This record gives sequence, structure tokens and C-alpha cells, in this order.
Amino acid sequence: DRPRESGVIIGVLPTGTHNAITDVPGVKVGHTTRIRGKSVRTGVTAILPYDGNIFQQKVPAAIYLGNGFGKLAGYSQVEELGNLETPIVLTNTLSVPTAVEALIDYTLDLPGNENVRSVNGVVGETNDGYLNDIRGRHVRKKDVLGAIANAESGPVTEGNVGAGTGTICFGFKGGIGTSSRKLPESLGGYTVGVLVQTNFGGVLTINGKPVGQELGQYYFKRQIEGSADGSCMMVLATDAPLDARNLKRVAKRAMLGLARTGGIASNGSGDYVIAFSTAESLRIPYSPEKRTLTQEVLHNDVVSPIFLATIEATEEAIINSLFAARTLTGSGHTVEALPVERVLQMMDR
Amino acid sequence: DRPRESGVIIGVLPTGTHNAITDVPGVKVGHTTRIRGKSVRTGVTAILPYDGNIFQQKVPAAIYLGNGFGKLAGYSQVEELGNLETPIVLTNTLSVPTAVEALIDYTLDLPGNENVRSVNGVVGETNDGYLNDIRGRHVRKKDVLGAIANAESGPVTEGNVGAGTGTICFGFKGGIGTSSRKLPESLGGYTVGVLVQTNFGGVLTINGKPVGQELGQYYFKRQIEGSADGSCMMVLATDAPLDARNLKRVAKRAMLGLARTGGIASNGSGDYVIAFSTAESLRIPYSPEKRTLTQEVLHNDVVSPIFLATIEATEEAIINSLFAARTLTGSGHTVEALPVERVLQMMDR
Amino acid sequence: DRPRESGVIIGVLPTGTHNAITDVPGVKVGHTTRIRGKSVRTGVTAILPYDGNIFQQKVPAAIYLGNGFGKLAGYSQVEELGNLETPIVLTNTLSVPTAVEALIDYTLDLPGNENVRSVNGVVGETNDGYLNDIRGRHVRKKDVLGAIANAESGPVTEGNVGAGTGTICFGFKGGIGTSSRKLPESLGGYTVGVLVQTNFGGVLTINGKPVGQELGQYYFKRQIEGSADGSCMMVLATDAPLDARNLKRVAKRAMLGLARTGGIASNGSGDYVIAFSTAESLRIPYSPEKRTLTQEVLHNDVVSPIFLATIEATEEAIINSLFAARTLTGSGHTVEALPVERVLQMMDR
Amino acid sequence: DRPRESGVIIGVLPTGTHNAITDVPGVKVGHTTRIRGKSVRTGVTAILPYDGNIFQQKVPAAIYLGNGFGKLAGYSQVEELGNLETPIVLTNTLSVPTAVEALIDYTLDLPGNENVRSVNGVVGETNDGYLNDIRGRHVRKKDVLGAIANAESGPVTEGNVGAGTGTICFGFKGGIGTSSRKLPESLGGYTVGVLVQTNFGGVLTINGKPVGQELGQYYFKRQIEGSADGSCMMVLATDAPLDARNLKRVAKRAMLGLARTGGIASNGSGDYVIAFSTAESLRIPYSPEKRTLTQEVLHNDVVSPIFLATIEATEEAIINSLFAARTLTGSGHTVEALPVERVLQMMDR
Repeated sequence: DRPRESGVIIGVLPTGTHNAITDVPGVKVGHTTRIRGKSVRTGVTAILPYDGNIFQQKVPAAIYLGNGFGKLAGYSQVEELGNLETPIVLTNTLSVPTAVEALIDYTLDLPGNENVRSVNGVVGETNDGYLNDIRGRHVRKKDVLGAIANAESGPVTEGNVGAGTGTICFGFKGGIGTSSRKLPESLGGYTVGVLVQTNFGGVLTINGKPVGQELGQYYFKRQIEGSADGSCMMVLATDAPLDARNLKRVAKRAMLGLARTGGIASNGSGDYVIAFSTAESLRIPYSPEKRTLTQEVLHNDVVSPIFLATIEATEEAIINSLFAARTLTGSGHTVEALPVERVLQMMDR
Repeated sequence: DRPRESGVIIGVLPTGTHNAITDVPGVKVGHTTRIRGKSVRTGVTAILPYDGNIFQQKVPAAIYLGNGFGKLAGYSQVEELGNLETPIVLTNTLSVPTAVEALIDYTLDLPGNENVRSVNGVVGETNDGYLNDIRGRHVRKKDVLGAIANAESGPVTEGNVGAGTGTICFGFKGGIGTSSRKLPESLGGYTVGVLVQTNFGGVLTINGKPVGQELGQYYFKRQIEGSADGSCMMVLATDAPLDARNLKRVAKRAMLGLARTGGIASNGSGDYVIAFSTAESLRIPYSPEKRTLTQEVLHNDVVSPIFLATIEATEEAIINSLFAARTLTGSGHTVEALPVERVLQMMDR
Repeated sequence: DRPRESGVIIGVLPTGTHNAITDVPGVKVGHTTRIRGKSVRTGVTAILPYDGNIFQQKVPAAIYLGNGFGKLAGYSQVEELGNLETPIVLTNTLSVPTAVEALIDYTLDLPGNENVRSVNGVVGETNDGYLNDIRGRHVRKKDVLGAIANAESGPVTEGNVGAGTGTICFGFKGGIGTSSRKLPESLGGYTVGVLVQTNFGGVLTINGKPVGQELGQYYFKRQIEGSADGSCMMVLATDAPLDARNLKRVAKRAMLGLARTGGIASNGSGDYVIAFSTAESLRIPYSPEKRTLTQEVLHNDVVSPIFLATIEATEEAIINSLFAARTLTGSGHTVEALPVERVLQMMDR
Repeated sequence: DRPRESGVIIGVLPTGTHNAITDVPGVKVGHTTRIRGKSVRTGVTAILPYDGNIFQQKVPAAIYLGNGFGKLAGYSQVEELGNLETPIVLTNTLSVPTAVEALIDYTLDLPGNENVRSVNGVVGETNDGYLNDIRGRHVRKKDVLGAIANAESGPVTEGNVGAGTGTICFGFKGGIGTSSRKLPESLGGYTVGVLVQTNFGGVLTINGKPVGQELGQYYFKRQIEGSADGSCMMVLATDAPLDARNLKRVAKRAMLGLARTGGIASNGSGDYVIAFSTAESLRIPYSPEKRTLTQEVLHNDVVSPIFLATIEATEEAIINSLFAARTLTGSGHTVEALPVERVLQMMDR
């Protein structure tokens, strides 16, 4: 069961139907999981803003560098132009070039893109090199293209799947997690969805409970004193009509959600938030017919509820990843899953 | 009693002697509190990095814009040059120019500064206009100079004092709060101290407990749906030898501490973190004798414990401000103090 | 005569009617010049985006930090919210607080602002302390309010006037300069206007001619080897419908115009560009009637001509300031005007 | 002949021995040029900060985004940590992933890096898709590794070589260019070297002469009105002991050099500056033996001459690329070289 179904209710706002990033209409998620032999424990997760040629009709977007010790591809163009022109792909650190290559293939091959000669692929990553033979670079282009092709709306598989196959979080097995919030109509009725690839440390707190400390400070020590080459990739989707400037502000708030789980964004952490809006009126044509775009955007004064929704959904997505992940052995190491039963008992006290 | 003395132990690291920013050797804090008649409820708080002519021997510093809806003075020069050349002054929004003026007076008048013709005063602010007649601008230059002159090491008065006299936090009376952390010798033995001026909203969480929700969602509604022109000024001092780049990274982590109290950095919030290092070897002379500075700075790899210390001290400083503040009436409004007894009972459950 | 009237044609685009920032419809400029006794050589220049209550109907804006060694007020809020809510005031370094105070007075006193309790005054500065008794802080609030009250459309006085009264540029007397460009209708027909307060050094180049070197490398030596606490404030107005993100990009290009005059943005320089759009459809109401704003903004693909217009207008505005400035004595120093006749002869070769 | 040898003397500072980035001791440059059949016109250029294992002993570095419409890899980690851990590779836009992949191979295979599981490859690019079949992605990993292996000190080949094989600049054939400046001993005696890959537009100005206009405004029109998916990659090396903060400031100045050639950093331009210091005392060990680094760094006050050197070397490197490039036909298009003889005649007037 997911935490919410076990009574762990994070925050004050209601979730969307699936409590997933796919609650934002049009958003799809696909995974490719690579588990082979004793050492391949990795994969790919793809997030599609909408069904269609994203290069031809770009979506407003922003990337926030929570802590930039990472190899994310595509930052500067999103920062400069305020838009996204490919699906977002998550994978392991050393497979970023393969994933970018695949996004170029994908984009060049789309009907209508026959003359495209420049593609800004956005790829995030965390380092799964403890459980996975990361130096072997076992992600292939077809794994990336497969994750895109398989992407679906509806419920999202969490835990040891896709880009979360080999990740570790707070000393436990981490993985993919997702959550969403739906604002009341009086606040606009917008949906905010978050998907995370959790691979970071700190002092685990679940809905305010100091779970990490109660399970032994081992985890704290391991993460703080040890080499913490962890990371958290966060992808945020919303149907609220936000331009790139306000998407950047929203993206910043995802770090506040991470903070509530006990994350500290350690030196070695690559904590990135990629945020985009699916609002159709904000699509940015590659070949504009006229000089100007007519856009309906939210006034600054009404974005605060979206900030709160972001914080809550990020916190819950991280916790969801921990609840869904399973004990995994790879590359000669074993990482245990979060002891969910014991944790739920703690939560009840 | 402060929360810690009542058994509310935030985080895993030990505090310094006074659990205050003044635990960082050399740091001093001074307050001027302006309460007069029915409507003047404001003041000034000054933080001195060390005793001496800061203009002549500057300290490395950084300012992080958590959410820049505010009128802080001095940002761009700190960003460009990586240092601080005046005491830090906190006050109300509309008194920033008076405080900058006072810092110019203070600096021009220091012995040795007779030929100084350029001063970058750093002044933070929050808006106390609900309890205080802020439009009347009742802070005078002598109030600012007084706060600097009165600055002391040792315990720091918290609550309705200085720049916290008229502030509101999570719907309760806010104010000044402070806390510190001391790293174990194995992690460097450094001290991190934080002082906050709390005037912001969200869903109050105290050491993980959803206090705001349990006291009625009134507070959430008020802060989220209402006009939330709040702010949190955070000042961070450390004796760890950090250069401006790593101070900026440390400053960013203070926002993670704010997040743990339920803060959301709403649109109207001016959330700023000013961080400086008191390490003597990192002083930057105004009139350098030679071309180069020889500096001993921390390697990136060892800053993570300072990140954790920052998060914990910021969280506790905010909670301390709420515990210390008292119910206040001003400008025809009354803001209640946090019901500490009731909160402590919640914490025990 | 201005350089253009003497045959110095900078760039390839045509100017507006007055070759001034006021060619952008609605923009007004006012000066207060303070010359008194032997040592007061300073002043104030105000730029109004339009005639009306700017606080109630804000304009999109951005500030670019070319080199942030300066005391500009108002940066962080413009950066966060993307708008401007007061006139822009330029003055000397140590008079920034007085100018901010005056902008607060001005804003609080406007009809309709009776309940305003927060004002983000934007004030730029350069240091005129060589010719002016800057430590005496001779700018008064009424000087600032006067510059705003006197602001006019039409031709703008250049040279030793307003905030340019006591400034120095490339070792010659600097001051206020302005210029504009009007794009052909095929590129949108937009106007870009720039106003500068020149107080910086480098190796003077006028429309490509190495004037500084030919007049003796004295100027280079003085500015490069000496203490170069100079600065250039640049204010850019346009009627092109640009949002804050593209205004920031436009603002960055003003530095390219400065570069073409031989400026190097030295360590001690405070080089700031404040850019705003007067497009009426982009006004941002303080009290919005609905959640969203409907905005017509330029597509990224069509901003390049505005970049070129910005570069050309900035270059010409700086040169205009030098041609208009007159030899001035103050505080026991004399700074010579650019020897215009000799320079024009060089240009002819 | 290079322009300087033909009497085109840009700036006031002297060059280093080879007037090349390799004048900075230890820096090496290597090219792989890929010309095959009618459509392959591309290549790779590699810049090595020093001879040795850069991953184990990193160099301080910064990247400045002049205009971020580009696909440069490695930005966020350099920004966060302030260092560079691989050679810098330049290539075409769609070959960035191949180059990153090659840098990972290169780094993992170095003796001593057997356990490395995370590599931040820095790769810059411009789009050579007019002359080159860029969609075919003809750069192979061995081309990248070859450029690194072939890297040499001493004179650097310019023009249609390496990553400059198929580029276009101001409507003429662009390519690789390089230049250097050596400060007098009184200013520190440091060397600054710049290497550029020129592929951008604007209104060409050579040492102040409006060459672009005189050769017909065709070039202006083509670049401004047409699709200007151009870019300029600039790599800056210095032996001055600059930390990442001051390297970022130096990097910003390279854009001022670009401005002096008539570049406007158009919307579609990817203008990036990668700067690093070779100062041995500033090396950053991957496996530090102690908590702190003892660094000798330049005081802010003495960096201005390095700014000037950067501006001059960048301007000259760009002009050098144009003088060295040769007319090229590829993919059915021909781009003419700059008519050097005619230009030199203009310069003489």
C-alpha cells in the first residue's frame, strides 16, 4: 500500500485521482527497467508533457538547481528560452549522453521535424553506482526510446523501476515516487504533479516523525559522514498557466518539500527540479505565424497555493518512493527496503 | 522557557553554549525596540560579525534570495565581491533607507575611514504594518546606531524585540529567534549560528508536529488565502572558513530549515539569507598590501555537516521566536502569542 | 552639437525623433542639478515609465548586473516579480537612501495608495566623489521629488546635469547621455531608448576610433591602474511587448554597447542595466480583478533586432554624454571635457 | 598571415609568444577535422588545462552564459563546485552526447580512476548544419579521443579546423581562432589566452572599422533578419590565481570582446564562456588529505587588468578565426572566406 492508503496523510491539500504526476491532464510516464545478471540494476524513466510533437509546440518550463553536483543535460537553453522541446528523461549518471542521443534520434525522426538541426534534450540523472555496474553503461538508446514509447497516463509504477531501479534514499532502497495535489476551485482548481527519482541522504523524517533517528542514527551517520554522492531529481507538471518565471519559483519550492523529508542537499547531491506547464494557451510554436504570442498567465499574487501544492506533492512523492521500493542486491551489495510495518507503527504513536 | 528547555529537541546536532548566533566567537547582537503610544510597534536589530572596523577588514559573505519580494539593501555588491563591509541591520520595510543612512554614518565616522566615499550597507526587513504604523516610519537613525552600539555577545533576547517587535508568524506573534549548532571535532568543530526575524506564513509544524492544523486550519487559511505580505530574514554566522561560494550554498540551506517549520515562501514573502564567515584568515583588507590573499578554505567535500547544522539551527531559531513572542496589540489589532502550554502538550503525544 | 549632428553615425538603425529615451511614448525624464559653493556637484535624474500611478499599474521590468560593485536599490524584488512599481531615480552613491526615502514618500502620497505599506523604490547610482563632496550627502528628498515632478517628454538635457553633474568617464567629464533606435516596421516598428549616467573607465573608442589611445594613454593608465571606482547606470525603455525574461536578455545587451565604447566593467565598477516595457497590454495591476493576465508578448525569435537596437543606443548614449559634458571644477579637482573638435578631426581621418 | 602580422593591432596590451591560448603554460590544444564526401564538414577541438589527470587534481573554473541557446554539457556542476574535471571539448551541436561519452571513457580509463563512477564532461558546441550534414552525426568517439591525444602546446591551427571546420561568422566562413595577452610585471605578469569557435552574426567590425557595412549590408540583413542559429564558444585560460568567483567575472568580460567585433548575441545564439585557472596552488584534489585547502588568490582589486586582457584577446581571437578561415563548400552550400586583402585595404584608410 502507498503511505496515504495506510493513513499517512501528508499536508492539507487533496490529491488528484491517481495521486500521481499523470493527474495533470496529458502527462504520461514510461519506464524501462534494466536488471540483468548480478550487476545491472538501472533503467530509464520518461515524462511526456503531452501527446504530440513537443519540438514543434514547446511548453513553458524552468529548471532549478537545488544543488548542482550532477550531470543534467539541457539546463542553459531552458534557462534562456523558458521552454522545453523534448520529453524529460531520467537515468543514471553515466548514461546521460546515451539518453540525450536517444532524444535527438526521437526528435529528428518525428514527422514534421525533417529539417530540424538543433535539439535540446533534457535528461536528469542520479548515481546508482553502488548497486549497479554504472561504469558498464548498460542503458542503450532503445531503452530510452522504449520508455518514451511506453509512456502512459493513469497510475504510475513506483519503487525499483525505471531510473529508480538502483537508487538509495536515506540509507534505504529508494526509487521512483510520485504524488499530486489538486487545488480547490476557489484557488483555481489547478493540479500539480511531482515525480521523483530518490537517491539522497539526510535524517529521514516521515510526515514529521523522526523515523531516521528512531531506526538508529546509522543512516544519518552513513549519509552525513560518508561519501554522499546522492541526488534527487524532481519533475513537476502543472496545468496552471504559469510562465517560465513563475515556473522557476514553483520549482524552487520542490526543495522545501525535500527538506521536509529530512533531505539536506549535501555537497555531493545533484538536486534538480524541472517544472513545466501543460496549459495549452502557453504553447510556444517552433515556427510562429506571427510576431507575438497571446498568453493568459497567472498573476504573481495567486501562485502561493501552487507553492504549497508543490511542497506537499514533493514530500509525499519522496515518501512514496521509499514505501514502494523493495530490498535489492546488486554489484555485491544489498540495500534494504524501508521497514514499512515498523515505520507505520511509529507513525501511529 | 525556550522550546529546548521544555524538551523540544530539534535535530541531531548539539547546540553551542547559548544556543544563539553569538555562539560564533566574536558575533554580537543589539536591539532597539520602539513601542510608543497605540501604533508604534517596531524596532531594529543589528548583527556584528566581529568587533572592529568591518569596512577595513571585510568578511566573506553571501546573500541568498529565497523569495525576493522584499527591499533588502546591499545585495548586488555582496553578490559581486563576496564580502560584507558593514554590520547587518534588520528593521521594518519602510525604514530600510533610514537604516542604510545610519550605516553610512556609522562607517564614515569610524576612525580610519576618513576618506571612504562608498559604503555598501546591508539591511534586511520584514513588514510589520499590521501591528505597527509603518507608514509613519518611526525608526530613526539613532535607533539604528543604538542597536549597533548596544550589541553584545552572550545570550540574545528573543521575541517582541528589535526588528521583531511587530512581526507575525504563522498567524501568531512572531519576532526575533536564534539558535546554533556545534559540529563534533571529527567534523571540524565549527559553530553555525542563525538569527531570524519571523514574519511569514504557512502551515505551522513544530519539530514535525502539525501544530498549525491541530490549532485549527484558520492559520493555514489566513496565510494562504489571505494577503501574505510576510517575510523571513535569516542571518547566518559561522567560524568555518568558507569562501563566498560555499557561503552561498550554506545560505541556500537555511530555506530548508524554514521549510521544516511549515513555511512555504509565499509569493509576497521576502525570504533572504545573509551568511558570513568570521574566520580571521579570510578577512579581506580594504587596502591590500599585496596582490594576493592567502586563504585557508574548506574543501567542498566537507561542507555537508555545515549544511545540516544550518538547517537545524534555522528551524529551531524560528520556533524559538514563536515561543518567546508575547501577545501584542498595536494599530488597533491584536495578535496572540503561540499557546505554548497547549503546544507542549501536543508535542508530548 | 550632438555627435550624430556632427556626422558621427553610430550603428545601422535609425534613431527616434529626439534620439532620446523619451522617444518611447510616455517616458519622461527629469533632472535636479545641485551645484553649490566649491564642493557640491551632484544631482538627481528621474525616469518615469509613463504618466500615472505606477504602483497601481506596474510595468514589466528586469535589472541586469553587469558588474555589481554598486549600491543600487530595488534589485531583488524586480528580479523576483518581474516588475517596476516606482519611477527610476539615479543619483550619487551615498544619496541612495535619501532617494529611496523620497520614492516611498512619493508613492505613499499618490491618490489611491492610502493603504500601501510596502514600496520597492528602484534607485541607481554612481560615485561622483572626486568632484563632489559626496560624504556631505547634499541631495535632499525635495531634490528627488523635484526631478520626478519636472519630468518631461521631448528632448533630454545631457552632460553635467542631474545625476551626471559630477561624473567622470574615460578620464573626461562624463554625465547624462541618451539615445534611441526605431526598428523598421518589418521588424515590428518598436522603439528602444537608453539613458546613461556615465562614470567609468577603459580605453575610449568612439564609433570604432581608438580615441583614448590617440589622446595619450594617460586615460587608459589612469583608469586601469588607478582606483577605478566608476560605474555606468543604464536605463532602457521600450514599447515592444517584452516580458521580464526577455527584458533581462535585452538588458544584458546594453553591456555590449558599453563594450563598444571601450568600457571594461572594471572591478570597482557598478554597471547596472534597468529595462522596462511600456506596452500597455503588459501592465500588472496591484489589485487584480481576476486570477490571470492576458498578455501579448514577443516570441523569442523576434527579439534579436531589439538586441541590436539596444547595443547601438547604449553606445551612442555614452558617447553623447561625453560630447555634452563640460569641464568642471569641484572639491579642488578639475576634470576636462572631451576635446570634441580634436575628436571630430580624428573621426574624419 | 594573421591580422596582427598584417598590421591590425587590436588593443593596448602585448600578446604572449604564440598569441594563442597555449601561451598559458601547460595548456594544450588538439583538433580532429572531419571532411568527407560532399557533406561531412565538422570536427572536434580539445583544450587541456594541463598535462595530467584533471579528474584527480581539478582546476578552478566558471562558465558564463552569454546567451544560453545552446547545448553545452557540464554547466551546473561547474557552477556549483567551481571546478573542471575533464578536458574541454568543442564540437557540433548534435555531437555533444558523443563527446560527453568520449570524455567519460577518457576519464574512466585514466590510471588512478578505476573507482570513479561520476564524471562531469564539459562540452561546448556550435551548429555547423549549413555546411555539414549535422543530422548525420559524423563525429565519433575516436575523433574526440584523438583530439585529446593530439593536443599540443605551441602554435594553434586556426580557421577551418576541428570544431571550426564548418562554422560561419558574420556571413563569412568562421572557424577556430585564438589569441593571448600578457600583462606587464607591474600588473602581475599573468597571461590570458582565449580560443574561440566562431559561428555567429551581427555587424562585423574589425578593430573599430565597420567592415560589415562597407562590404554591403547583406551580412547584417542575413544575420539579423534571417534565422541566426549561430553561436560563439569561448574558452579562456589564465595562470593568474583566480578562484571560481573571479573566473566567472572574467568570463563575463569575454562577451565584451565579442561585442567589439559586432556580435549581438542574437536570440538563437549559444554564447558561452568557459574560464579556468592553471595556477598550481589552486588545484582541487579529488581525494583531499585534509579538510582545508590553502589557496593564494588574487584580491578583487587587481583583477581589472585581467578583464582588459580578456576583452582584447577575445576580440582578436574572433578576428583571427575570420582571417584564417577559407572558403568552403559542403552540403550543397558555399560560404566565402572574408576577403582579407580588401579588408586590409579598408583598415589602412
